[in-house]
Amino acid sequence: MSAEFKILVDLLIIFAAAKIFSEIFTRIKQPVVIGELIAGAVIGAHGLGLISTTHVNDAIAELGVIFLLFLVGLETRMDDMREVGRPAILVGFFGVLVPLIMGYGLYTLFGYDSIHSLFMGTALVATSIGITARVLGDMGILKHRTSRIILGAAILDDILGLLVLALVASLAKGSFNYVEFIVLLVEAVLFVLFLTTFGPKLAGRHIHKFIDRLRISDAPFAIGIITVLGLSVLAEYIGLAAIIGAFLAGIVLSETSDFLDLEKKIQPVGNLLIPIFFVVMGTKFDIFGLFNASTLVLLLLTFVVAVISKMIGSAIGTIGLGYKTMLQTGIGMVPRGEVGIVVGTIGLSLGIIGKDLYGIVLGMSILTTVVVPPLLSLVFGIKKKTVKKTTDSKIIM
Amino acid sequence: MSAEFKILVDLLIIFAAAKIFSEIFTRIKQPVVIGELIAGAVIGAHGLGLISTTHVNDAIAELGVIFLLFLVGLETRMDDMREVGRPAILVGFFGVLVPLIMGYGLYTLFGYDSIHSLFMGTALVATSIGITARVLGDMGILKHRTSRIILGAAILDDILGLLVLALVASLAKGSFNYVEFIVLLVEAVLFVLFLTTFGPKLAGRHIHKFIDRLRISDAPFAIGIITVLGLSVLAEYIGLAAIIGAFLAGIVLSETSDFLDLEKKIQPVGNLLIPIFFVVMGTKFDIFGLFNASTLVLLLLTFVVAVISKMIGSAIGTIGLGYKTMLQTGIGMVPRGEVGIVVGTIGLSLGIIGKDLYGIVLGMSILTTVVVPPLLSLVFGIKKKTVKKTTDSKIIM
Repeated sequence: MSAEFKILVDLLIIFAAAKIFSEIFTRIKQPVVIGELIAGAVIGAHGLGLISTTHVNDAIAELGVIFLLFLVGLETRMDDMREVGRPAILVGFFGVLVPLIMGYGLYTLFGYDSIHSLFMGTALVATSIGITARVLGDMGILKHRTSRIILGAAILDDILGLLVLALVASLAKGSFNYVEFIVLLVEAVLFVLFLTTFGPKLAGRHIHKFIDRLRISDAPFAIGIITVLGLSVLAEYIGLAAIIGAFLAGIVLSETSDFLDLEKKIQPVGNLLIPIFFVVMGTKFDIFGLFNASTLVLLLLTFVVAVISKMIGSAIGTIGLGYKTMLQTGIGMVPRGEVGIVVGTIGLSLGIIGKDLYGIVLGMSILTTVVVPPLLSLVFGIKKKTVKKTTDSKIIM
Repeated sequence: MSAEFKILVDLLIIFAAAKIFSEIFTRIKQPVVIGELIAGAVIGAHGLGLISTTHVNDAIAELGVIFLLFLVGLETRMDDMREVGRPAILVGFFGVLVPLIMGYGLYTLFGYDSIHSLFMGTALVATSIGITARVLGDMGILKHRTSRIILGAAILDDILGLLVLALVASLAKGSFNYVEFIVLLVEAVLFVLFLTTFGPKLAGRHIHKFIDRLRISDAPFAIGIITVLGLSVLAEYIGLAAIIGAFLAGIVLSETSDFLDLEKKIQPVGNLLIPIFFVVMGTKFDIFGLFNASTLVLLLLTFVVAVISKMIGSAIGTIGLGYKTMLQTGIGMVPRGEVGIVVGTIGLSLGIIGKDLYGIVLGMSILTTVVVPPLLSLVFGIKKKTVKKTTDSKIIM
């Protein structure tokens, strides 16, 4: 079987499994995204072994999450974000600080040394913006005030989480490079501030004229693709994650997106690639592998700490906004999803943690991801009817 | 640089280069597809070396040509094809026979043994349906009667070409397996006949009801993707090419595609992936490497034979349809594009030919591809104004 043919077969299996499980989960009135994650667990190397983990699948999956964040960004107006700026920043900040401290505390209690404990704390800090955005999008409440707080905070804690990870990784190497860290910090701040402050205005002012000058057909689509790929590459290049660049690309084009008809043009690409991302994420879940006696207790405690610490951090950030917003935000921030998995993978590849702690990070990421969607429906008081109706018009299948 | 990041960078460079060269070629009133091929030659390993040849790029490129053929198939009604059935079959058949004989003759004259000569004849047989469809689509004449003859014949000669290749490859191995060959032959015939005869009717009768029963959002898109990936995999599995399955998937869904609004939903996916295919094809062109004295003469003769033999074969098939149709069909059938390259690559990997003959096959594929688009505009009498207007609404950017 040639490499290209194998990829085609994998994509067919992944996409078909995504749709079959989506159909089942729609019928049993559960979030489609959970269906896709479970589809991945079923067909993946730890399940039926129908597809294997390859760089190609991972790359196409990453394209999926990039287009997801781009689409979310396109729906996000900076004015709306600024309106929730204060709580979003506070939730993002305390949502990093509290899990970091509590995670560190838990592992220190269990006798791990400071580097291991610090790393496990780090694995707890970043909320999965992909999962969160998807679930909120599926519920059709992406523009809800609390959703905006959650999105803003999730972007911020991804950035803070990456900075903490860079810090811990260099500590683990035994040599903390102040200069490198400060460069990363400054780059990250400038990148985000520049794009969110000037990006939409610059795009709004110049993009019409630029597109008018182009002779190629469907120039807006081309501009959209080049912007999202370009800023994703740039974000990753300066040490942030590609998805942060993709979200910011959406923000930059959000105010011109109606004019460019971009959402409609990008959506089908997302419809193809986004389910692939969630299925491929699912393939990494080795649920049975996790359940051995020695790690099970620690996993469950880590999960509890992951949930409680994030909810405390979010609650601190939303003090004064009322009990309901505090609860909604807290639950919305719980899923660690792919970000937790990525942090775990980096830790394993750098030799900071071993297979046992890696398994716990994966397990924590999965558990926090799986429990949240039904809880979110509950606290947002979404009725099934509404969910079904809105998914048709909203982001993502 | 991680593998995933590398892929992201490659995609950015490929897509941006495609658009820059498309813009230039639109301005100098040349076919966009040539611009994309040249973009590939410029950024590829034989040019500036900005991207490398990887399985991932090849795989994404193959997805591109699959979606191209799927979109062409969606625009193709079997009734229209049946109307040109006789000339299409004749052009397909003689367009394989004449190049095979003349190619064999040329290489026998130059003293090559029968297997080498036979292989070089085989490399000349198959028209690139990808290039042809793209050029006809860009000109907005995909539904023109002659275009339908060309498309039908190109599909047929791809199938015949693959059969001949299977034959030659087993002869080269020294063991011709009758059973295997007959199985392939029967499978190919059944596959194509079944899908073209019953496919559209079955889809027309059952797909409405099936989609009505599904609860997932955007079921038509999901059905479209699963059909195209499924039939591509199936075609490749039985020994045909994935693109033949993709084209047939389009045919199967063509009569229900208006109802499903499929073209509009698939087009953006094509807009992203199709330029990537042509750029990646361009990266394989080592124009300078071809021009050494020893192979140059043989290359030019091979090119001349490739053009003349295909035009003779097409002319035989279109006798009685008038001089203009004969000329249009003949020129339309000339480009060997990716099919020639694929045949050459198979020959090289099986050890049937060496680097020198492989270079000639590549050179012939490129030359036949590059000369055709301007000639086609000429013989179809397309004015630039018309070309520009129709590209906006037609397949492919």
